[in-house]
This record gives sequence, C-alpha cells and structure tokens, in this order.
Amino acid sequence: MGSDSDLPVMKDAARILNMFGVPYEVKIVSAHRTPEMMFSYASFALERGIQIIVAGAGGAAHLPGMVAALTPLPVIGVPVRASALDGLDSLLSIVQMPRGVPVAIVAINNATNAGLLAVRMMGIRDADLLARMSQYQEDTRNDVLRKAKKLEKDGWESYLNP
Amino acid sequence: MGSDSDLPVMKDAARILNMFGVPYEVKIVSAHRTPEMMFSYASFALERGIQIIVAGAGGAAHLPGMVAALTPLPVIGVPVRASALDGLDSLLSIVQMPRGVPVAIVAINNATNAGLLAVRMMGIRDADLLARMSQYQEDTRNDVLRKAKKLEKDGWESYLNP
Amino acid sequence: MGSDSDLPVMKDAARILNMFGVPYEVKIVSAHRTPEMMFSYASFALERGIQIIVAGAGGAAHLPGMVAALTPLPVIGVPVRASALDGLDSLLSIVQMPRGVPVAIVAINNATNAGLLAVRMMGIRDADLLARMSQYQEDTRNDVLRKAKKLEKDGWESYLNP
Amino acid sequence: MGSDSDLPVMKDAARILNMFGVPYEVKIVSAHRTPEMMFSYASFALERGIQIIVAGAGGAAHLPGMVAALTPLPVIGVPVRASALDGLDSLLSIVQMPRGVPVAIVAINNATNAGLLAVRMMGIRDADLLARMSQYQEDTRNDVLRKAKKLEKDGWESYLNP
Amino acid sequence: MGSDSDLPVMKDAARILNMFGVPYEVKIVSAHRTPEMMFSYASFALERGIQIIVAGAGGAAHLPGMVAALTPLPVIGVPVRASALDGLDSLLSIVQMPRGVPVAIVAINNATNAGLLAVRMMGIRDADLLARMSQYQEDTRNDVLRKAKKLEKDGWESYLNP
Amino acid sequence: MGSDSDLPVMKDAARILNMFGVPYEVKIVSAHRTPEMMFSYASFALERGIQIIVAGAGGAAHLPGMVAALTPLPVIGVPVRASALDGLDSLLSIVQMPRGVPVAIVAINNATNAGLLAVRMMGIRDADLLARMSQYQEDTRNDVLRKAKKLEKDGWESYLNP
Amino acid sequence: MGSDSDLPVMKDAARILNMFGVPYEVKIVSAHRTPEMMFSYASFALERGIQIIVAGAGGAAHLPGMVAALTPLPVIGVPVRASALDGLDSLLSIVQMPRGVPVAIVAINNATNAGLLAVRMMGIRDADLLARMSQYQEDTRNDVLRKAKKLEKDGWESYLNP
Amino acid sequence: MGSDSDLPVMKDAARILNMFGVPYEVKIVSAHRTPEMMFSYASFALERGIQIIVAGAGGAAHLPGMVAALTPLPVIGVPVRASALDGLDSLLSIVQMPRGVPVAIVAINNATNAGLLAVRMMGIRDADLLARMSQYQEDTRNDVLRKAKKLEKDGWESYLNP
Repeated sequence: MGSDSDLPVMKDAARILNMFGVPYEVKIVSAHRTPEMMFSYASFALERGIQIIVAGAGGAAHLPGMVAALTPLPVIGVPVRASALDGLDSLLSIVQMPRGVPVAIVAINNATNAGLLAVRMMGIRDADLLARMSQYQEDTRNDVLRKAKKLEKDGWESYLNP
Repeated sequence: MGSDSDLPVMKDAARILNMFGVPYEVKIVSAHRTPEMMFSYASFALERGIQIIVAGAGGAAHLPGMVAALTPLPVIGVPVRASALDGLDSLLSIVQMPRGVPVAIVAINNATNAGLLAVRMMGIRDADLLARMSQYQEDTRNDVLRKAKKLEKDGWESYLNP
Repeated sequence: MGSDSDLPVMKDAARILNMFGVPYEVKIVSAHRTPEMMFSYASFALERGIQIIVAGAGGAAHLPGMVAALTPLPVIGVPVRASALDGLDSLLSIVQMPRGVPVAIVAINNATNAGLLAVRMMGIRDADLLARMSQYQEDTRNDVLRKAKKLEKDGWESYLNP
Repeated sequence: MGSDSDLPVMKDAARILNMFGVPYEVKIVSAHRTPEMMFSYASFALERGIQIIVAGAGGAAHLPGMVAALTPLPVIGVPVRASALDGLDSLLSIVQMPRGVPVAIVAINNATNAGLLAVRMMGIRDADLLARMSQYQEDTRNDVLRKAKKLEKDGWESYLNP
Repeated sequence: MGSDSDLPVMKDAARILNMFGVPYEVKIVSAHRTPEMMFSYASFALERGIQIIVAGAGGAAHLPGMVAALTPLPVIGVPVRASALDGLDSLLSIVQMPRGVPVAIVAINNATNAGLLAVRMMGIRDADLLARMSQYQEDTRNDVLRKAKKLEKDGWESYLNP
Repeated sequence: MGSDSDLPVMKDAARILNMFGVPYEVKIVSAHRTPEMMFSYASFALERGIQIIVAGAGGAAHLPGMVAALTPLPVIGVPVRASALDGLDSLLSIVQMPRGVPVAIVAINNATNAGLLAVRMMGIRDADLLARMSQYQEDTRNDVLRKAKKLEKDGWESYLNP
Repeated sequence: MGSDSDLPVMKDAARILNMFGVPYEVKIVSAHRTPEMMFSYASFALERGIQIIVAGAGGAAHLPGMVAALTPLPVIGVPVRASALDGLDSLLSIVQMPRGVPVAIVAINNATNAGLLAVRMMGIRDADLLARMSQYQEDTRNDVLRKAKKLEKDGWESYLNP
Repeated sequence: MGSDSDLPVMKDAARILNMFGVPYEVKIVSAHRTPEMMFSYASFALERGIQIIVAGAGGAAHLPGMVAALTPLPVIGVPVRASALDGLDSLLSIVQMPRGVPVAIVAINNATNAGLLAVRMMGIRDADLLARMSQYQEDTRNDVLRKAKKLEKDGWESYLNP
C-alpha cells in the first residue's frame, strides 16, 4: 500500500488471505514518496517468489499501474477513497490503464474483494483453494439464507426493531 | 461476451491469447437474454476445466458480476462503451461489486488488457508464460524506444509531417 | 432486497403497500450471494401468483435486472445508496438496461415511490386502488396546503422559529 | 412526448405495442410549451380510459414527473438524450422524483424498454400478455443462441469478416 | 418553494428582499404535490401584480421550469441540495431548460443570490435600487478589506488562532 | 462574449432581441485576454445606459461572474460548450458563484433563452414586452399544437417518413 | 486567497514557504468582492517584486485565472472545496483555462503542494532551494521507510492496534 | 510525453517555446512502457541541466506524477484526452497528487498553456522573458480588440457570413 493511512482499508485483504491460509507480506511502498523502493520491490518481486501483488492507493493513485509496468505478475489495484471526489479520482487513476499494462481493479475501498480475487487466482494452480472458495461462497450463501429465514419468520417490523 | 455487438471490442482479448498460445473459447452468453445459459455456463466452467473467465458487457453490465457469483474461478470484466454516458455506466456496473464476489476489471473497451491479465494469471502456474510476458513488456519497451529515437533524430516537426 | 442492510430503505415500500392494503412478501434474495435462490425466486414468481416484483440493491446493483431477465412480470428497481459515489453507481447499474429487458427504476433510496408505483400498476386491474391513489394524492395536496396556509398566516420567521 | 424531435426515439415504444397488439395513442404534449394541454391530458387520462402513460423528454425533462403528479395512473419516463451532457441531465431530471409522486424510468433513449414495461404492466390484468411476454423473452433468447452457435461454428475471425 | 423543507435555504432570499425593502410574498407551491395551485399561481401571477418569481426546489426540480412555462415574468430558480448526488440533480433539472422557456438559475442552495438577482432585475425600473445595490457591493468590498487589513496586521497565525 | 468563436452560439440571443425590438449591442470582451476592457466595460455599463448584460463564455468561464462583480446590473450567463467535458466545466464555472454576486445562468449553449430572459426582465418596466412575451409563448404553443394535430392525423409512421 | 474562510486550507502553503525560508505575503483579495483590489494587486505584482502568485478559491473560482490574465508571473491555483459538489466545481473553474492564459493547478484543498510547487519554481534561480527540495523528498522518503519498517517488524495487527 | 500519439497535442508546447526562444528537448518517455527510461530521465534531469519538465499523458496518466516524485524540478502536467470519458480520467489522474509531490496541471489537451507556464516560470530568472510574456499578452489583447472592432463595424450578421 502507498501509505499507512491505507492500512485500515487494506487490512481486509490480509484478513481474507489469513482465512484461506495463503501466505503474504504487508508492505508500505509509495510510488510518489519512495519511488526507488517501489521500483526495486516491483522489479524483484517475481525473483523473490511473489506470485500476485495487491496494491492500494488513493487520489492520483499511481502505485498499481507503476508496479504492473515493472513486473509480469498479476497486479490487483484497490482504489482507496481519499478526502475529495468520493473515490472517483482513485478509481479512474487505476482503472484507465493503457493497452499493454493490465491492472485488475476492484471496487472503491473493497480490499476484501482484492483478497478474494488473489485467492481465486492462486486457485489456478491449487485446486484445493478453489474448493475452499466454493465453500466460502456456500457459507456466504448460508448466511444470507439464515437472515432470509429470520426475516420471513419475524416479519420486517420485528427484524428492524428486535 | 453478452452480445455479438461486443465482439469488435472483445476480439482483442482473443488476439492476445493467440499471441501467447493460451487456449480459449469465445462465447456469446447474455446475463439478460440467456440467463439460463449464463447460469449453467458459469456453474459448470470449473468442472469443464476452464481456468479464467473474461466477461465483457455494456450499459447496466451484469454479466461479469453474475458469472463471478456462480463460479470460484477468477473473472475478468471488460466494460464495453455503450451508446450513452461514454462507458461510465458499464464501468460502475462492473467495478462496484459488493464484498464477497470479486471481479477483476480493466479499462473501458480495453480487452487487450483483459487478455494480458489472463496471461499473467495463467503465469501463476506456468513460469514460461511469465517469461514470455516479460519478453512482451520488453518488446513494447523497444517499440517505444524506437519511436523515441526516431523522434530524437527527426525532430518533432518532421515526425509529425514525414 | 439483496441484503438485510437494505431493509431500512426498502421498508418504506412495505409501508405504502400496508397503507393501500396490497398484500406482499418481503424477502432477502441476493443476486451475488444466493444466485440460485434469485434464479428460482424470479423464475417461479409468476407461477406463485406474484404480480409485481420490487427489487432494491446497491453498488453494482444486479438484482433488479437479473430478476427482470427471468420473469415476464413488471420489475421495479430501487437504487440503494452504498458507501461510495453517492448512489450514482447503483442508479446507473439498474437504469441502463439493454433493449429487451425493462426495469422500472425510481429515485435513489426512494422505496416509498417504488411502493406507490406498484400500487398504481395494481390499479390497472383494480379501479378501487386507483381511486385510493387519487385520494392519496389529494391528501398529500392537503398536507401541503395546510403548511402553505400556516406559512402564510405565521410568516416565514415564526414558521422557522416557532 | 414533449416534441416531435423525440419521435425517432419514442417510435420504438409504439413498435413494441404494435407487436403485442396493445392499443395506444401517440401524442405530442409539451410540459413547457403546452402546459395547459399537458395539464388537461394528464388530468383526464384516467377518465378517457387510458391505463398507462409513457412520457419521453430531454434536457430538463419535466413531462414525466408533471404527468405523474396529475394522474393516479402509472407513468413510464424515457430520458431522451439532448444536445449536451450525454443524457445525464434528462436522466436525473426524471428519476430523482420526490417521495409521493412515482415515475418508472427506463434507460436513456430506450423507448423499446418503455414499451416492454408497459406490456408487462398490462399483463397484470391480461394473463395472455404475460404469456406472450414470456414468448418474446424466449424468442430473444433463441436469437442470441443462434448467434452463439454461429460464432462457435465459424470462429470469431470469420464471424467478424464474413 | 416546493416544500417547507426548502425554507431554511430559501429564507435567505427573503432576507435580501427585506434588506432592500422590496415587497414579496413567501409561498409553498409544489409542482408535484399541488400542481393545480402551481398552475393557477403561475398563470395569475402577472395579473396579481407579481413582477419576478423566485422558485426553489430539489431533486427532480420541476417547479422553476413549470412556472416559467406558465408566465411571461422572469423566473429565478434555486437548486436545493436534496439527499443524494450533492445537488447535481437539482442543478441539471433546473438549468437545462429547452429553447423557448428561460429560467435564471443561481448556485446550489444560494438563495441569497436569488434575492440579489431579483433586486438587480427590479433595478431595471427603479434606479434607486441599483444605487443601493452598488452600495451593497461597496459594503461587501469594505468587509473584505477590513478582514484583509486585519490579516495583514495580525499575520495569518494569529488570525487563525486569535 | 469572450471570443468570436462564441458568436455562432451567442447570435441566438441577438435574434431574440431583434424579434422583440429590444435594442442591444454585440461585443467581444474577454475576461482573460482583455481584462482591462472587460473591467471598464462592466464598470461603465450602468452609466452608459445599459440595463442588462448577457455574457457567454466557455471552459473556465469567468466573464459572466467578473462582469457581475463590477456592475449592479443583472447579468445573464451562457455556458458555451468548449472542446472537452461537454460544457460541464463552463456550466459549473458560471453557476457556482459565491453569495453576494449573482449571475443568472441558462442552459449550455442556449443563448436563445438568454435573449428571452432578457426580454422578460425588460418586461418589468415595459408591460408591452410582457404582453408580447405572452404572445410568443402562445405562438410556440400553437406551433406544437399544429405538429400535434399533424401527428394525430398522419400517424407516426407517415409523420416520420412523409 | 479570495476569502478568510479559505485560510484554514491556504495556511499550508505558508507553512511550506516558512519551512524553506522563502519570503511571502498572505493576502485576502477577492475577484468577486474586491475586483479593483484584485486588478491592481495582480497588475502591480511584478513591479512590486513578487515572483510567483498562489491563488486559492472555491466554487466558481475565478481568482487564479483573473490574476493570471493580469500578470506575466506564474500563477498557482488551489481549488478549495466549497459546500457543494465536493470541489469539482472549483477544480474545473480553475483548470479549464483557455489557450493563452496559463494557471498551474494543484489538487483540491492541497495548498501544501502549491507551496512546494512555488519552492520548485523558485529553484529555477536558486540552486540551493532545489538541493533543499531534494532533501525534503529524502526526508519524506525516510518517514515512509520508518513506517514501512515498523509495519514489517510489528505486523499489521499490532500496527493498527498498538 | 508518454506516447507518440500525444505529439499532435504536445507539439503546441514546443511551438510556444520556439516562439519565446526557450531551448527544449522533445522526448517520448512512457511511465508504463519504459519505466526504467522514465526513472533515469527524471532522476538525472536536474544533473543534465534541465530546469522544467512538461509531461503529457492520457487515461490513467501516471507520467507527470512519477516524474515529479523523482526530481526536485517543477513538473507541468498536460492531461491528454484519451478515447473515453472525455479527458476526465487523465485530468483526475494527474491533478489529485498527494501532499508532498506537486504537479502543475493545465487544462485538458492545452499544451499551449503548458508552454506558456514554462516560459512564465523561466521568467523567474530571466526578466527579459517576463517582458516578452507581457508583450505576448498585449499581442493577444490586440488580436481580440481587432476582432472586437471588426464585429462592431460589420455587425454580427456580416461577421458570421462575410
């Protein structure tokens, strides 16, 4: 991530990777304030055995795109909502990459989905992860179904004011 | 893709996959007009040995998100510019997925990057693909350098009016 | 609705239907987290005697459009404001449906109007409902007129600081 | 519709109604240029036996909302793209109605869906129409399937350059 | 104004008119909830001796445009910020009027300027008002100059933390 | 107007003033390129007997607001669509004036309405102009009614393909 | 700056100039409320020995552009977020200047960067300032590296909940 | 500039620098396709005697911000309009830089102003350049005045149709 102020958002990706037992490292690497570190981190990531890079940044968010320019690994970008424009600037700065340098972007502030996308990608070489992703989807489904049943049983008035 | 009218955009993904020798299938599957086919296609993709799904759609673009809801595989979404709002509707309809169901989105109409992203993902299990992606990046670099040299040699006036 | 977090918004539709004595059911059905349930709910709604479906969802809001794809019944979509972009993402995700699959969309978070629209639609086969809708409009009118008279009598200073 | 310049867009609603055999009338009624006619048209529509009103307008599009204020009938609004802002002004002017006065809005310039929505609404009292709507959806599905098969057979290169 | 909820914004216009001694009336007239009253109010305004109409409304704001359609008097529109989209919907709904029916729009929630604009318009027949408007501009200027001097004397640190 | 490139838009205001017999002058005065001329033009307009100023400009459109700051006369702003952003920049640059300095803005490129608004303002001191404005509105109405009748008689198919 | 309400934002530029020992003056000069002062301030700035002007304003922000029209000096514009539209109006009002009159704009509310940009510009004639700017960049870098190390050592859970 | 496709826009900066006799070099340096070249170009620019860097890029435009991160020199960013979103993506990607790394941005596609801004900056150490900038502003003014006179003499009808 570009700054420790992004951590409250980006931690959700770490949580997902913990849940699925996928090893990861959490780093602050700023495209604008530590460009050399960003450069070397991205350039040597493949060599160090990194398989996927999740990069979160806000405002004129250049980190995901620059990292993607420096590595052949898949890069997932998380647009972090900064103080103005409600995240639209972060979103457009990450998503509108030119032909040749892809970034996989997820929703504004949605590091949970960045983590889940990383797990799905890892599933390409690890069938067990895909199976657990299916299980995760089923668990989510069951959570919703439980709520759906409770709503049906209680009625919406009691559901809202228990 | 959701309609054959998306093919002129989506063909660029196929071209990239051809270039990297990654096998693929091209299908028209509409979330809105063939929901059952979309449902069964997405649900059985894993079983059929599919590893990544690239889904392009325009306007209120529901295909990528619905497919992602029905499979544990990674799904790449391409927002296709439709007749109004310059692609902003497609972009927001795909990118703003809720927590739990990730879609990897690329730039508006940028199916080239969807193909490249798929190749990078496949690189997770195929080191050779990553090596070729590095080569592709170097080729792109050399193209730019060639143009940069030509511009330096000719000067911008002659470059523009050869 | 797609999630129980939409209930504080969507309950306003239920209130309107209560007020007009139109029977309804309130359900949580998520396009993204319970796609099978969404599929079967929408596909069998007509058979079960449902006449109108009101679907509320936020962010990349796919529920109304997917339901409309799976039923010939009229579907009313309520864009629920999610955490970013002030509801514009929900609005565009629901309204920009492709030719062939209509959704009747109302204002952001305005489930009251979804309920009223449903009542007006039911009025197509129930003249009494239309009469009561006219009465509702007259009541609203009288409310405004009462306020207008009070404002005229008190003056705006006292009206603001009674 | 508010002007004869909207006819090239709005005719698509008429075509759908023709196709389903639903009787209709096509009228130019401008909220801004013929307010009295708009007023009386909307006020007496119920009495004249009208069951649904489809209103299309562009720019600061007031026709659908004003008509909805003057009748208890369901009103469908079509935002017509005017010369600036790509239809966003028409869309917001129609969709953001206050609580109490619902308008059912469809996508920008999508009068086809306005017609289809009207047919679905009429289906509330005419089961036969619903059956034909299901048939229409199946026909659309089959069109897509035909194209999908052709694409599968020909391959995308020949499909694009027959 | 369209609703008494607009009064906290619209009162600023009244304050300006008080300050300049321009007689006015404050009314709640809703285009959507009291269309007949709006109709008769606007139609008879000229006859009643009204010279300018200031109309404020939010969301799909139809009041200023409808009033302008029903009177030859100048109409000033105030876009009131409603609960979503930060006033952009109100702004576009009022400003994008079609050729033939002009509305004079001011900034979002800026009823002060609506009042000042009305005074300037009244100045067309009352030179004294224009003189007082010049005086008002000079007073505003002097306020700023006073602050400018204080800032120069105190320095910005003390100015901020007196 | 700020540039002769605005003339094709702004001429519509002149046409309206011709039609109503209101005397006017057409000037190029640029806030950015001839600030002194703008300054003196605006400052002496009242003295020269000008009663209303119509100012059109595009992009970062400062002319209407600057003129309004320098005169107590009513100023009408016309946002002219420049090469990017579809006129949104011009619109916001003119409409979002701070409290104290009002500008009466009309729709993007809609100099016709600027002319009509000026006529309505002049009507404050000239009842005859108001009467002719009413007549203009009636003429517009009759134009629409003529088209409405023709459409009713011919049917929409022949109306579109005469 | 255009108003003392901009001071809490604009003070950040002063802080940067203090830090780098660049002399400056802080002034309130309003394009709309003190146009004459703005005019003379900008016109005589060069003569008074001013080298760069930093101008902050909100809403329909005309100050930076007007100042740039009246001086050959470089002008830096700071869009200040006003009460509506999240600063987009200020941004577009400043950035979309016509050919011929340049303004150097920075991010919304980012007066820190305006100060830093002024220092970089001053560095054109003062190599020592550039050296100190390099040092500032290195300090910033070290701050980030310190945080990066702490995060690495503590792990993200402890970093968030120390 | 990031690509030779930006040259038709960026050449306008070169033209201005030619006109003012300011020496410059024109280079293609892509943040995304030649990151190493970008890195070394920006890092050694100061050492090579460069005094200002003008960087133009489109879409997710990272070049200006990355260059600013790697040099203490002033950097001017030109948002180039790419194929979608009318340049808004380029604009936000460049302007919304975080505190600490300033970029001086000009209007979309307005490389003319980037050149003029560079000249104004160079004027900080070269009074002669400032004098010529004043002359340039006077020439522009005279151009407008000539057109203004012609318009006054000919009238707008002949001016438009000579």
